[in-house]
Amino acid sequence: MQKEGELMHQLMTELYPICRSITGDGVRETLKIIQEIVPLTIHEVPTGTKVFDWEIPKEWNIKDAYILDEEGNKVVDFKKNNLHVVSYSIPVDKVISLKELQDHLYSLEEQPDAIPYITSYYKERWGFCIAHNERKQLKEGKYRVFIDSELKEGSLTYGELIIRGESEEEIFLSTYICHPSMANNELSGPVLTTYLAKWILSSPRKYTYRIIFIPETIGSITYLSRNLDKMKANIIAGYNISCVGDEREYSFLSSRKGKTLADKVALNILTFNKIDYKSYSFLKRGSDERQYCSPGIDLPVASIMRSKFGRYPEYHTSLDNLDLVTADGLQGSFNIYIECIELIEKNEIYKVNCFGEPQLGRRGLYPTLSTKETGRMVRDMMNFIAYADGETDLVEISNLINVPVKTLYPIIDKLYNAELISKVNKNEKKLI
Amino acid sequence: MQKEGELMHQLMTELYPICRSITGDGVRETLKIIQEIVPLTIHEVPTGTKVFDWEIPKEWNIKDAYILDEEGNKVVDFKKNNLHVVSYSIPVDKVISLKELQDHLYSLEEQPDAIPYITSYYKERWGFCIAHNERKQLKEGKYRVFIDSELKEGSLTYGELIIRGESEEEIFLSTYICHPSMANNELSGPVLTTYLAKWILSSPRKYTYRIIFIPETIGSITYLSRNLDKMKANIIAGYNISCVGDEREYSFLSSRKGKTLADKVALNILTFNKIDYKSYSFLKRGSDERQYCSPGIDLPVASIMRSKFGRYPEYHTSLDNLDLVTADGLQGSFNIYIECIELIEKNEIYKVNCFGEPQLGRRGLYPTLSTKETGRMVRDMMNFIAYADGETDLVEISNLINVPVKTLYPIIDKLYNAELISKVNKNEKKLI
Amino acid sequence: MQKEGELMHQLMTELYPICRSITGDGVRETLKIIQEIVPLTIHEVPTGTKVFDWEIPKEWNIKDAYILDEEGNKVVDFKKNNLHVVSYSIPVDKVISLKELQDHLYSLEEQPDAIPYITSYYKERWGFCIAHNERKQLKEGKYRVFIDSELKEGSLTYGELIIRGESEEEIFLSTYICHPSMANNELSGPVLTTYLAKWILSSPRKYTYRIIFIPETIGSITYLSRNLDKMKANIIAGYNISCVGDEREYSFLSSRKGKTLADKVALNILTFNKIDYKSYSFLKRGSDERQYCSPGIDLPVASIMRSKFGRYPEYHTSLDNLDLVTADGLQGSFNIYIECIELIEKNEIYKVNCFGEPQLGRRGLYPTLSTKETGRMVRDMMNFIAYADGETDLVEISNLINVPVKTLYPIIDKLYNAELISKVNKNEKKLI
Repeated sequence: MQKEGELMHQLMTELYPICRSITGDGVRETLKIIQEIVPLTIHEVPTGTKVFDWEIPKEWNIKDAYILDEEGNKVVDFKKNNLHVVSYSIPVDKVISLKELQDHLYSLEEQPDAIPYITSYYKERWGFCIAHNERKQLKEGKYRVFIDSELKEGSLTYGELIIRGESEEEIFLSTYICHPSMANNELSGPVLTTYLAKWILSSPRKYTYRIIFIPETIGSITYLSRNLDKMKANIIAGYNISCVGDEREYSFLSSRKGKTLADKVALNILTFNKIDYKSYSFLKRGSDERQYCSPGIDLPVASIMRSKFGRYPEYHTSLDNLDLVTADGLQGSFNIYIECIELIEKNEIYKVNCFGEPQLGRRGLYPTLSTKETGRMVRDMMNFIAYADGETDLVEISNLINVPVKTLYPIIDKLYNAELISKVNKNEKKLI
Repeated sequence: MQKEGELMHQLMTELYPICRSITGDGVRETLKIIQEIVPLTIHEVPTGTKVFDWEIPKEWNIKDAYILDEEGNKVVDFKKNNLHVVSYSIPVDKVISLKELQDHLYSLEEQPDAIPYITSYYKERWGFCIAHNERKQLKEGKYRVFIDSELKEGSLTYGELIIRGESEEEIFLSTYICHPSMANNELSGPVLTTYLAKWILSSPRKYTYRIIFIPETIGSITYLSRNLDKMKANIIAGYNISCVGDEREYSFLSSRKGKTLADKVALNILTFNKIDYKSYSFLKRGSDERQYCSPGIDLPVASIMRSKFGRYPEYHTSLDNLDLVTADGLQGSFNIYIECIELIEKNEIYKVNCFGEPQLGRRGLYPTLSTKETGRMVRDMMNFIAYADGETDLVEISNLINVPVKTLYPIIDKLYNAELISKVNKNEKKLI
Repeated sequence: MQKEGELMHQLMTELYPICRSITGDGVRETLKIIQEIVPLTIHEVPTGTKVFDWEIPKEWNIKDAYILDEEGNKVVDFKKNNLHVVSYSIPVDKVISLKELQDHLYSLEEQPDAIPYITSYYKERWGFCIAHNERKQLKEGKYRVFIDSELKEGSLTYGELIIRGESEEEIFLSTYICHPSMANNELSGPVLTTYLAKWILSSPRKYTYRIIFIPETIGSITYLSRNLDKMKANIIAGYNISCVGDEREYSFLSSRKGKTLADKVALNILTFNKIDYKSYSFLKRGSDERQYCSPGIDLPVASIMRSKFGRYPEYHTSLDNLDLVTADGLQGSFNIYIECIELIEKNEIYKVNCFGEPQLGRRGLYPTLSTKETGRMVRDMMNFIAYADGETDLVEISNLINVPVKTLYPIIDKLYNAELISKVNKNEKKLI
């Protein structure tokens, strides 16, 4: 059987050439390909719909774009790289001077071989993005600029997958599908989320999962505006999945107050996996956690990433490509998220059923001979029992007794089967 | 226009020669001079009045004092320096031996050129203070000691200025006018407080200001005993203003529990001004905060000083003179206190008016083109909004997002004018 | 008069040869000797009695045990050292090969001259403990193994001493008397507890004292199962007294949450005595605090030790002998526990009786002459008053103002006699 990492990289390779934006056919095409793997429901929200303080913009589509020099050479060609066009550019077809053209060109002096990623969703303009080294070679003269795009009344498209569990309480996963041909930020999020959803569908589960593929910002605002009450009532933990594909160190971005179950679980898993990670406060946010954790919404949403948006040199340029993201990089993130989900599923408040220490010996859980040393498993079990006080949840016990949850799972099973511990139904859904 | 620093130093120079004590004409003369600048109300509280655990002492006045040697030379002369007489000395006029005189002399072996400042308010005695080097030159023989002072039924005098604002809530400023000719401790407090009062009178304000000029300890106890209920009900923050005139590093002395609005504001202003300051716990108190923060009174009062009482070599000696305190030193403290007052005036709990991030772009508050970098102002604004959650006040937001309040004031104005944020009326007057 | 240290070491020397276990005549003999010093009540709990999750085991007694080689030499002799027999060994009398014997021998390769201490309370087996160097010298051949022991229906024995005070609130002291011939762990605990009890009996006291001499684990579980309600209602602080006899550094083991009065008092006394001590979290527990601090029981019990169980090389071997424990070592622990008990007895929440600072001067508590320096005693008194706010107890004030409680006791007496402070009856018995 193929590893998820490879499957994810294959899916990314398939999705990579599509020109996505916050609306339009690129999003639809992307969601349709994902739909072949997991049963997304696709929603369309019409242009002009009010969503909180915002409004769904016009839908944008583009067929072709280029710049021709006087000799008829395509000095810039959208078909070679869709980053060449400023996203949401209005149509244009005219001949202009180099001087006039310069006002519509975007390049990065400090990264002269990279095409930058530029958008102008909410003001109508047109523009081209180009490597700075190529820009410098443009000669004086006339250029034909041509963008065959369309801005029209249409809709914003997003995908949603609700996977029912025993409980109405929900685990929330959100990723965004609005970026054109870039890999870590952002196709790594959608492909990881797709294969997490596939894994969840095939796994026993307690919680319901709300998994969404949306355009960034306007998409999360739209989704929240249509689902806020249910989300606030049911979501116990969630993650915004972005920038999860390269092989560099991990990043953790906390929720606004940093104390939710999502934060606690992520930090426990990252720490006990002895993974090097860089921890960012909410001040370093930049993706849909901006909405999920905003005042009055305050969902328990954090992020585990590899190289964080805005913090790696290839970010938002053509250098963020299929070489930067690897099957191994994706697999590492996948494994961490699976461990987080498992921990949320298994996290309970336990209480020991007797006063004083239980007599583990007559249950075969304690060595019959007392010597200078007792084993590690016994010590972990005794420590778990000592903190199973009906107030402290599994994540906190793991932190307090400094034992990974993976080591505690079989211990808990033994104690539970021996009827030595019970679960406490403390309705502490959100520790915001 | 003259700078406040110079005006303050001029006022200090005028007040410096007056012989003040905790009662008497020196206090009255001092308050009258201040009254020419700000409209103080002057109160007299009769000797014998019970004030909490204390009683107003007899009033003390002094006309002259000296020590004559056998040749008739004035070896000590009150008219040259009023520190020469122990404050509250009873009258004396007799000829005694050097041996007997020595029991009434006070000097500092480790600061042999300084005249020490000594008081004996609550036990009747007489004494002279003298530089140790001069004391050593006294020859065997007879000396005439003469103190023309009077201890009588009279009153304790203090000045009060209530400046009404829109709100009954009060900002409290207290300083003391009981020290004879010393500059940093203490004429710097009264002159700074005078010019703060003048500035407040000329400024728009929300809060009412309670500003008092009192003798230390007995004065604050007296004032509290007559105004405690109103003060506890209304004061939201206050400062005891003392030792604010030299040019050395700043000092911060916290309130008893260190968590009041006065503490928070002072620390925010000192920190974001990138001022070097030394922070002292309440264990290092020594002035009227001893009363204002005592159990059961617990007013939100802290202190910002330059060189703190008891912590600089000239303290409580004749070396604490008009050279030690400068116009620049006073101006620095003035500016900090103004910033603190401005912050208290502007401190509010804000709440963003919509769910999710507001769309700043259509209000001209966000760049229309999204590139790799967004500007600092936009980031500060977005961060302010993210913490404007209806629970966190401006001081706390400034600390959390690490942006000076001065930078936030115009941002708040923009957001408020755009109706994106509201003020929350949380009655959290005192965070003691 | 003899110092307690010497008396304790004498008592230990007397108790040392007795073969104790969790039940049996060794315990009874030990308690009877202690009874000659303090009036213990001795309790017997029959075999088979259910105690929480446990059951009182059979009673074990032993008369003799040895291993004979083919020449009739006693290669192991219980009469020389009672550690030679695995505690709770069943009777045996047979001739076996060296190979078979090896399965019943216990030694420590890394401490080849030490006899290890081994028990098998809850599984019936027999065995001998031997120095590894002697084990290596055993030759091939036949050995007669002989253990003249008895496992029978009987009872578990423990000693209890309730010393009534004015209050029903209790201070709890627990120690264990189940270890055979070892000194620090454990005869130091019982002998120290005996002389603490003797001192308490002769001292004025406010609180009632509950002092127990029990076998470890099964004894504390038994005692708790019979007294839990009273203990939970009345105990305000307690200590498990173990490993208090050598001269090495002190150890502190906290209660489960580390915030009880017992913890606070122990840390205050250790810290202000400027004693080097090692602080252990509850994860390093190992004695009866395991029961006293278990979930649902949660008594305020901590431990002050010298070399902690499990942390010194002689632990649970024949090297833990009468040389390791000294009169000075015991005396040091005795003194610390006395100070802790005194502090618990004197710990109160105080409140100053007036607003503002009291006028100490007219009560002779303050110097009448104010100079640059005030004395240390005055400063301590003023600081005590500043924190006597009706919310903070003596331990906390001592910590806050950084003054040892021994320095504060006479200050409190003066203030109390001057009616300047009152005690607050805040029912904050257990700060668990």
